[in-house]
Amino acid sequence: MITLYTHPFSKSGNSQIVPPPPYYYGVEYLAAHVFFNKEKLKEILPSFLDTDGEGWIYVADFVTISNDKWNLMYEDPSFTQYKEAAIGLKIYFEGKNYLYFPFMWVDKDWALVRGWVNGYPKKIGTVYLTKLSKLLPDYNSRRENLILGGYLLRDSKLIDLKVTLRRKVTEIPLSKFGKTLTIRYFPKTGENEQEVSELVTVEKVDSKIDDIWEGDAEVQIKGGINDELQYFEIEKVMAGYSYDYYFKTVGTKLVKVIENNSF
Amino acid sequence: MITLYTHPFSKSGNSQIVPPPPYYYGVEYLAAHVFFNKEKLKEILPSFLDTDGEGWIYVADFVTISNDKWNLMYEDPSFTQYKEAAIGLKIYFEGKNYLYFPFMWVDKDWALVRGWVNGYPKKIGTVYLTKLSKLLPDYNSRRENLILGGYLLRDSKLIDLKVTLRRKVTEIPLSKFGKTLTIRYFPKTGENEQEVSELVTVEKVDSKIDDIWEGDAEVQIKGGINDELQYFEIEKVMAGYSYDYYFKTVGTKLVKVIENNSF
Amino acid sequence: MITLYTHPFSKSGNSQIVPPPPYYYGVEYLAAHVFFNKEKLKEILPSFLDTDGEGWIYVADFVTISNDKWNLMYEDPSFTQYKEAAIGLKIYFEGKNYLYFPFMWVDKDWALVRGWVNGYPKKIGTVYLTKLSKLLPDYNSRRENLILGGYLLRDSKLIDLKVTLRRKVTEIPLSKFGKTLTIRYFPKTGENEQEVSELVTVEKVDSKIDDIWEGDAEVQIKGGINDELQYFEIEKVMAGYSYDYYFKTVGTKLVKVIENNSF
Amino acid sequence: MITLYTHPFSKSGNSQIVPPPPYYYGVEYLAAHVFFNKEKLKEILPSFLDTDGEGWIYVADFVTISNDKWNLMYEDPSFTQYKEAAIGLKIYFEGKNYLYFPFMWVDKDWALVRGWVNGYPKKIGTVYLTKLSKLLPDYNSRRENLILGGYLLRDSKLIDLKVTLRRKVTEIPLSKFGKTLTIRYFPKTGENEQEVSELVTVEKVDSKIDDIWEGDAEVQIKGGINDELQYFEIEKVMAGYSYDYYFKTVGTKLVKVIENNSF
Repeated sequence: MITLYTHPFSKSGNSQIVPPPPYYYGVEYLAAHVFFNKEKLKEILPSFLDTDGEGWIYVADFVTISNDKWNLMYEDPSFTQYKEAAIGLKIYFEGKNYLYFPFMWVDKDWALVRGWVNGYPKKIGTVYLTKLSKLLPDYNSRRENLILGGYLLRDSKLIDLKVTLRRKVTEIPLSKFGKTLTIRYFPKTGENEQEVSELVTVEKVDSKIDDIWEGDAEVQIKGGINDELQYFEIEKVMAGYSYDYYFKTVGTKLVKVIENNSF
Repeated sequence: MITLYTHPFSKSGNSQIVPPPPYYYGVEYLAAHVFFNKEKLKEILPSFLDTDGEGWIYVADFVTISNDKWNLMYEDPSFTQYKEAAIGLKIYFEGKNYLYFPFMWVDKDWALVRGWVNGYPKKIGTVYLTKLSKLLPDYNSRRENLILGGYLLRDSKLIDLKVTLRRKVTEIPLSKFGKTLTIRYFPKTGENEQEVSELVTVEKVDSKIDDIWEGDAEVQIKGGINDELQYFEIEKVMAGYSYDYYFKTVGTKLVKVIENNSF
Repeated sequence: MITLYTHPFSKSGNSQIVPPPPYYYGVEYLAAHVFFNKEKLKEILPSFLDTDGEGWIYVADFVTISNDKWNLMYEDPSFTQYKEAAIGLKIYFEGKNYLYFPFMWVDKDWALVRGWVNGYPKKIGTVYLTKLSKLLPDYNSRRENLILGGYLLRDSKLIDLKVTLRRKVTEIPLSKFGKTLTIRYFPKTGENEQEVSELVTVEKVDSKIDDIWEGDAEVQIKGGINDELQYFEIEKVMAGYSYDYYFKTVGTKLVKVIENNSF
Repeated sequence: MITLYTHPFSKSGNSQIVPPPPYYYGVEYLAAHVFFNKEKLKEILPSFLDTDGEGWIYVADFVTISNDKWNLMYEDPSFTQYKEAAIGLKIYFEGKNYLYFPFMWVDKDWALVRGWVNGYPKKIGTVYLTKLSKLLPDYNSRRENLILGGYLLRDSKLIDLKVTLRRKVTEIPLSKFGKTLTIRYFPKTGENEQEVSELVTVEKVDSKIDDIWEGDAEVQIKGGINDELQYFEIEKVMAGYSYDYYFKTVGTKLVKVIENNSF
């Protein structure tokens, strides 16, 4: 009997690119809270989602474990580390607000596929962000006036972010965006085939945030040939953030099946 | 109205990682025709597929166009080039024979996702094969006794292939394996969600093969922590091949919906 | 007795990153012939070199063999393939004209070091150029009106090149730039240490050019944080070229030892 | 006047791949203390160096700044981060003991060139090691029985390392190996050209070590086609170490000019 969750199949399940949840994430985020021109966003938002343009842009460094395979931390650490960049929007659907990611990039294949089955629009990109190092004279920990930066490179530099830390705070504005809403979408490729088109929320069962610093942010977003980021026209940069975050997910929860003609 | 085929969505469709077919492929293949121990293959084959162990291992260099976007050939050639490695098996399903790929690796994100929606079990890997160059004194074109090689590297070297060309021939044994059969599989990640589990054939509408050379092959396959290639135990190496191939695909054709408990 | 040419050392010499010459090169070039603002070039040119601004920009795909190790073509093809981008200038030194490369990028470590010992200022970058494929309906060989493109990506996109082929020609303007002049430079890192600062010419002993097409070129050059390409301000684009080239080098020839205070 | 230290040259010096010292390093090391078969080491050691086979193998994650360009930490963090793997030996030269690195790999071009001018035999490779993350339930900090791992991949997996932490200690055995001795080697490529062949010590002016854990190590070393690691035959694994280290270097100090016929 073959173990099934993702390809490649085997009896043991040890070849599949992504095993089933739970998934654990330890993350260092560098982010900017912004407002986009909301008219331009219509070029990339499904018609059933509304937004007032409030957004969240980040680059992040992840350590993650799938399915309690903690042995990968030392057996092959490449399967437990990835970097990610994303643009999130506060959106409204049937009267509730959510966090929705129209674009997201990671630097590992398994992170891409784990994202796709959960409805995240991931592509492969190169992500860099300032790394602190414990014993360096400067840049050993977050502190006032420290400047952090990061960027996303795919076939060109798409996102560039700089944050000057000013003060330690106790929460991030993202926490008011709502639950993460994604669209699990898998097309049919022939007649009579099945297609998946579901609005779901990602189910977090645990989370913790720490060492949150707020400051001044500078953000540059540029469109690429396969990444129409020109529709993310920043009208106002509110603030920048650097923080540690932990969370655990166990899957998704169906919100609504969406007909293709509703998009 | 959003254009839908794959994420990320937009009205223009120009941000999606994979647009809909047709897909064109111009390929240089280096391959080996082998027989595997068929008992070991049961560790990776769904129970409804049979095999006598006949297999095909290749590394290949692709130039490809999706959806007639020929402008990408010069606007951004990175979206038209990828390398691929794969292990194929001649399998039997309900009385017919097919070519089935239990493992496949590519070096681009869009090639991975294009594969997944069509049922190919793609991961990202690094693939190298001998490149001929027109004006080099040797190694400018296929000829008798020329030795070609290639390999697949993921987190370790998984496949190593060497072929000494001996004679020009008119066909490859792969042509008798049958149509390509894949399993479109997309898991549910929550209650009441949709899951796709379909046996399909990939629909080629055009193809051409040229400059086929046959010779002696040496193949080494080693398992990795997330790639159980130890189940591909080679019992006999029949021959090696180097050739050019062109094909065009337009999607897939449903063969059968498979219940999960049949795997 | 240790074999010496480059690190890492061993008796066999089989670990060194670059063995001694001869070196063979089979290359596909995509290039543009341009004139730069010659005043701006003073920001990057040593004071003993003059230029009237004539330049040559290319992206190229190399197959290469060092020291007659043709076995690497199949034992490990990664050591025989690299891509390169460069900006060349026609310069004058003591009454003669030469081809001088102020900037050059490759995608392999051994190509970088082989370059450094021969005086080329190589860095690692990602290079793409249109790949022709023999059996594709279009894009199978150079022909009138075919559009080719390529680019260089380091931490941002630095060079973008597009050429529309118009006519087959018999030579390229680069052949009038003169021999390749490089600066072998190796700094001292402490007192009483040796420093190398030599103007040399790269010695080609064989070369062949074929299938040269000329056409219209579009070039974009942008500066990066560690690549001051803003000083290559294009005043006129003369033409674009696509062609095959073969050459063999056997080392360099000393032109002059340069004192550091002459730079 | 052109600023000179490394190519590419410019007046500002902002394009050179490596600026002059000082260099600052904040490092996370995972290492193994071993004894190699000393006879086999003769295949890779210059004849004027002796060893009793004591060795040190590590994978490491670096944050580094060259020449006080701290702005790169946020302007372009890719120029401040690299990973490294190396094999070190305790060697004897003219009655003194030193730490000598016959092989070393990094994942950035500037780290490679910075190494070469200081006498380190660097190549480009892919290095992974366990990453701790502050808020993960496990793997948030070094502690008893935590298992850490890492590896080096070039065209195959060359080094694989696993360490189970057992106890916090106050020093590492490497501190008794001696100063770091390197060979600055730059070959001539033509007649009458200069060649550099100098035994030097790397000059550290500041250093700090912290949070040192000792434990049980497992190490696997395998030769590759261009990396003769088969000569590093491990006879005894003493212990494994994980620790943080900071150091600052200001250049090298000449020990002796070596004639090529002495190697």
